[in-house]
Order: sequence, then structure tokens, then C-alpha cells
Amino acid sequence: MADECVPVIRYKELPEGPAVVLLDQTRLPAEEVELVCTDVPALVDAIRSLAVRGAPVLGIAGGYGVALAAARGFDVADAAEQLAHARPTAVNLAYGARRVEAAYRAAVRSGVGEAHAAARALAEARALHQEDAEASDRIAEYGSALLSELVPGGGLRILTHCNTGRLVSGGEGTALAVVKAVHRAGELRRLWVGETRPLLQGARLTAYEAAEAGMAYSVLADGAAGSLFAAGEVDAVLVGADRIAADGSVANKVGTYALAVLAGHHGVPFVVVAPVTTIDPDTESGSGIEVEQRAAHEVTEGPWAGPMGTGPGAGVGPGGGSAVTPVGAHAYNPAFDVTPSALVTAVVTDEGVVSPVTSGGIAELCSTSPGRASRSANGMMKS
Amino acid sequence: MADECVPVIRYKELPEGPAVVLLDQTRLPAEEVELVCTDVPALVDAIRSLAVRGAPVLGIAGGYGVALAAARGFDVADAAEQLAHARPTAVNLAYGARRVEAAYRAAVRSGVGEAHAAARALAEARALHQEDAEASDRIAEYGSALLSELVPGGGLRILTHCNTGRLVSGGEGTALAVVKAVHRAGELRRLWVGETRPLLQGARLTAYEAAEAGMAYSVLADGAAGSLFAAGEVDAVLVGADRIAADGSVANKVGTYALAVLAGHHGVPFVVVAPVTTIDPDTESGSGIEVEQRAAHEVTEGPWAGPMGTGPGAGVGPGGGSAVTPVGAHAYNPAFDVTPSALVTAVVTDEGVVSPVTSGGIAELCSTSPGRASRSANGMMKS
Repeated sequence: MADECVPVIRYKELPEGPAVVLLDQTRLPAEEVELVCTDVPALVDAIRSLAVRGAPVLGIAGGYGVALAAARGFDVADAAEQLAHARPTAVNLAYGARRVEAAYRAAVRSGVGEAHAAARALAEARALHQEDAEASDRIAEYGSALLSELVPGGGLRILTHCNTGRLVSGGEGTALAVVKAVHRAGELRRLWVGETRPLLQGARLTAYEAAEAGMAYSVLADGAAGSLFAAGEVDAVLVGADRIAADGSVANKVGTYALAVLAGHHGVPFVVVAPVTTIDPDTESGSGIEVEQRAAHEVTEGPWAGPMGTGPGAGVGPGGGSAVTPVGAHAYNPAFDVTPSALVTAVVTDEGVVSPVTSGGIAELCSTSPGRASRSANGMMKS
Repeated sequence: MADECVPVIRYKELPEGPAVVLLDQTRLPAEEVELVCTDVPALVDAIRSLAVRGAPVLGIAGGYGVALAAARGFDVADAAEQLAHARPTAVNLAYGARRVEAAYRAAVRSGVGEAHAAARALAEARALHQEDAEASDRIAEYGSALLSELVPGGGLRILTHCNTGRLVSGGEGTALAVVKAVHRAGELRRLWVGETRPLLQGARLTAYEAAEAGMAYSVLADGAAGSLFAAGEVDAVLVGADRIAADGSVANKVGTYALAVLAGHHGVPFVVVAPVTTIDPDTESGSGIEVEQRAAHEVTEGPWAGPMGTGPGAGVGPGGGSAVTPVGAHAYNPAFDVTPSALVTAVVTDEGVVSPVTSGGIAELCSTSPGRASRSANGMMKS
């Protein structure tokens, strides 16, 4: 990572005490501002408002949040509980919080005292952070190797959705880490960046990272992807994931499912890229994944404080922005959708690739993962 | 139409001369403002900026524009040429301009003099306007009857895209006219309104009309439609069209094709609603339809003049708005996409319904249309 990049997340020992410091992703790309969270409620707010978002980094945030609570003398069990439930869909969040909580509790039980237990918690959180960075590197290797098989000859035109680079990760990311590897090898012709309404993680964050990396990229409205497929302009779709069920169903940012159906219709490879920490063996199938519903104003309002007007759409909406829709319009705003495994060409993880995507293949990935065999999705050691 | 509704378009004789007066759709729903066009260049600008948009009303605008030129003593052939080429995709625009030009030229040839020829042109434009209103009524009848067959029992959950009501029409519209008929019959459970990025005709205009009509509706990001289909929450998709080729391929607002593929994947009826004036027998297939590409800033900028910031995304973009993406980002911004006839369950027109959609069925619709048999797509009388 370049020295001048503001880190997506770090645990910092400040004179007045430790803090979890986040690059506020809601203000990108216009402003690079850090949010300093000195307690768990502040971190929970930051998670809920998407100042930090993306499954792998949520795991890191969960871990650091519990370490923060331990260091500052707050109730660690409460902290883990609040963090684990800050948002429901990405499984990594609870995994990170519970894993660090477990390390803390094990230390306490071993009799080392609070201070040492807090240090042990922080060490576990840092280890989780480092593992995710290393996972990104392995993911990038597996993913670019897979693409070379699926679409030999370079000159790849890859379509992505949402944001899956260093902003979601302790390292280079997931799907975007694969794209970066393809780009470094000189094999990326173009990155198609779906803007990803309503919160525009594609247009704001992926475009930001693509520009940083010097890629040739184009932003498009989510609905415009169809015509790219029809024109033969997409060689592969690469997306991340927030939760992968035992049967290989994938929950990811809303809009993903439509791209999977289009890809299937056009015979284009649809590849999901995620660390094994995103797999949840305790959720059997897609229907068991809880999809977060978010406030309507994300859809009905623009972020601007523009002309108020006197027409039926005038006025400031409940989100503080000027209404795009008529005032009081209802909106359907799921944050995620679920893609059945039959539409997924391959799942690329830090432990290898599953293709086709079957329950058996998913289970095998989980079992070969070194720390995984003895760990369930909530990070607790299995008896 | 309620008395208090601002008319979408009218030709008005003002003391200083005639004008084409438009409800400025770029400012809806926040502001109901009329744009007064006293010459053809102003009207062409209004068409290009989407102050007036939607295939049928573009035909009316083309007709009134030529009548305006005739009344004010401008060059009528030039006016027709400029209007016909103001935007390339909606076939109705050229049809309206050429039809009124033909009426004017026929009058001039018959020796009645300029003033009378101008009056004849205006009469033709008003006739076109009235025919479109009547076409809407017939479309609504045919469409609601079709839906009763396809999805009997009422309680319909209909998904729409873009805007297809009184804002695109001399009357109640096309697809939305059908929805209004279903609603009046008490058979609409919910209207799902795809917001329609980048210009949000769904969120701004369809929601506005749905609210006016007292419908139960929800706005959604275009990418969220996939999960509605997956949840079995869509009984039918109803969309308009900008151009229908001889083989039944349909060009409509970008994002339509993705909905057609999703509908096909889920066995949901996908119905295109348009007057026969939207059919272009001179374009053989979808690949022959010119798809307008619009400026990148529609995608890369928000309309707000917000915080400038110092990050890589700071500053004002070329469209005058604050950049959503990093400054200088390239965007892919087609205004339309093309849906092959195989994905269209039925085409509903003012002359009847074609289902399945075949070249023969489309040709028959054109031939049974009273004025159509002797009229080609550019409105000129065939020899």
C-alpha cells in the first residue's frame, strides 16, 4: 500500500487512551477524513452509518472494538454483543467480535489479570487484521489464476459491483484485489464499475481505488450493465460477498443478483471472491440469510440541500437531504440480495477455489482452513 | 385530467406571438415550472435537456415546433430538420415534425398562402396531440384487459421503469395509463417504481404521478428489482418504448433489458406498451436502432453544490454539479437499451395487442392502423 494512502482502519494508542480510527467512507471520494472512535457506541454508529463497511474489514472493526473495550475497562461481553449485532448480514462482523472476546475471556480465565487480558485481546485483533491482509494476497493469486483459465489471452473487461478493495480489507481486498493483480499483469482492458445505488459504493469508492491504481475504468448506472452484456463487452463479473451459506448461496450488495442472472443469460463467468471468514456453515441456505433493510431516505433523497421549491416534491426529507421523490414516498431498500449457487461460476477464497459451487465444495473449503476446522462461524472454539 | 394539473405541453397564442409551453420535467417533482419556447432552437434545447421527454409527447413537441416555425415565419424545412434530429432514438419525434411539415407543404402547394398554411400546420399538430390522447385511452383498455387475462384475480403488483404517464403523452400515457386503469378498477396492490438512474424519471416523475393518483407505490433502486422477482413480488412488468423495430425488438430507457431478462428468468409477464406511432417499420431489427449516448456527468455528478473537499473527488464537475466519482472519471451512459422480442410477452398498442411478438404481428398492427397504411415512419404520405 502506498505510504500516502489513509489506512482504512487502525487501532491507535493516543495519549488519552486507545481509539479505533477509521477512514470515513461516507465522505469519499470528496474528502479523506478520519473518524476517531474512543468507545464501542461510537464504533457501532460508524458501522451502522457505513463510515466503515465491507465484510472483511467489519470483522477487523469488530475485533478492534472488543479490544478497545477491554483496554478502556468497559464491559467486554456487552461490547462484543453490541458489535456482533451492529448490522445483521455480514457474518465476519460477529466472527471478529466473538473471536477477540474469546481470546480475552481465555486470558482472564487463565488468571493473567485485566491488563494482560486486554493486551491479549489486542494481539488477537491485530492477528485477525494481519490474517485478512494475507488472505487478500492469496485471494488475488487464486483469482487471477482462475481468470486466466476462464478467459485466456488477457485484455479482460471485468464488471464489478459495490466496493471490494482496500476499503473492505486489512489488505488489498477481495474482488478488487483480483482485478488489481490482473491490472498489474497488464491484462486488464477495462474495469466496468457499477455505481451501486443507493449509496454509490461503486461510483464513489471503487472508482476512487481504480483511479489510484491507474486502471482504465468506466462508471455506469446499475441498469446499464444489461446493454454491456448484450454488446459482448463483459468477459467476467467479479463481486465480493457478505455471507456465503453452506449451500453456496451468496448474499452480497443489492444489485448483485440481477448481474448474476444477466451473466447466466449471456454465458459470462460470474465469480464471487471472499475470504473463508465470509462463509457461514451455520446458515444452511440463502433463505436463511437475514437481509438488512435500510432507511427509505437513502433511496428517496439526494444528499444535497438544494432548491426547496413549492411543488409536491419540495422540502427537506427525514434523512436531511432534499427529496428526489415526492415527500413521504415509500421506498424498498434492502441492502443486500441473495444469489443461488447455480448462478455462481466459482467462489474464490484465500483457501482455494470452489467450482462448481456445491455444499460439499464449500464444506471442504471450511475444513481445510487451518484455524477453521476447530472454529465455528462465531469464532468460538468448538469442543 | 384534473384541472389543477399543469399541462405537459401546450401551444399558446401569446400577445407577442405563439409559443410552445412545456412543464419542465427536469425540475419535477420539487418545482412545477413552465418553460416557454418561442422559437425552434429553444424547443430543441428543451428536448435535448429532457425538459420534455417520453416518446409520444416528443412527437407532439415535434409537431408543435414546426407549427411554431410556420406561424412565426421561420424556415419550416429547417425547423423540421432540427426537430427531427434533436434526439435520435424515439421515432415519434421525427414522425411528428415530418407529419406537420408535410401538412404545411401540402397547403403551400395548394396555393392558400403562408398564413393559411401555418394555420393548417397548427391544425395538424393539434390533431396529432388529440390522437395521442385518444390513443392513451385505447391503450389503457387493451392493456388492462390483457393483464386480467395474464394475471387474473386482481391484487396486481406491477413493476415499472422510467416514466410513462401523462408526462409522456397527450393523454394519460402508455404503460402508466394501463396502471391507472388497473388502479381505478381497484385491482392494483402495489406499483414498484424503479428509480431509473441516471436521471431518475421513475423516482421523480412516476412517483409524482403515482402519488397524484393515490396509488400504493414504492420506489426502489434499479438493482433492487432482482430481489423482488426472487421473492415472487412481481406479477407483471409494464414498460413503454421509444422505438419498436419491425422484428419487434424494443428500445426503451436504459435498464429495461435487465428487467426483461429477470422477468424471463422468473416466468413473469413482460409487457411493452406504446402507441403504433412508436413502431418503426423502416428499422428491421434491434441492432438498427440508434441508441443515444449522453454526457458522462449525468452519471458522475450529483446535482448538488455541496462540500468541495480536498480529496481526489473534490471540485465541481463539467455538468456543474459536485462530483460523485473522482474528478475526470469516465462513464458509460447510454440513454436506452434494446430488448429482443423473444423476451417480450406482449406489445400493447392503441390498435391492439401482439402476443407473441413477431414481425408478422407487428406488420399487421401497422397495416390496420387507419392512417398508417399510407404513412411511413417519417410521417410522409407514401405514393
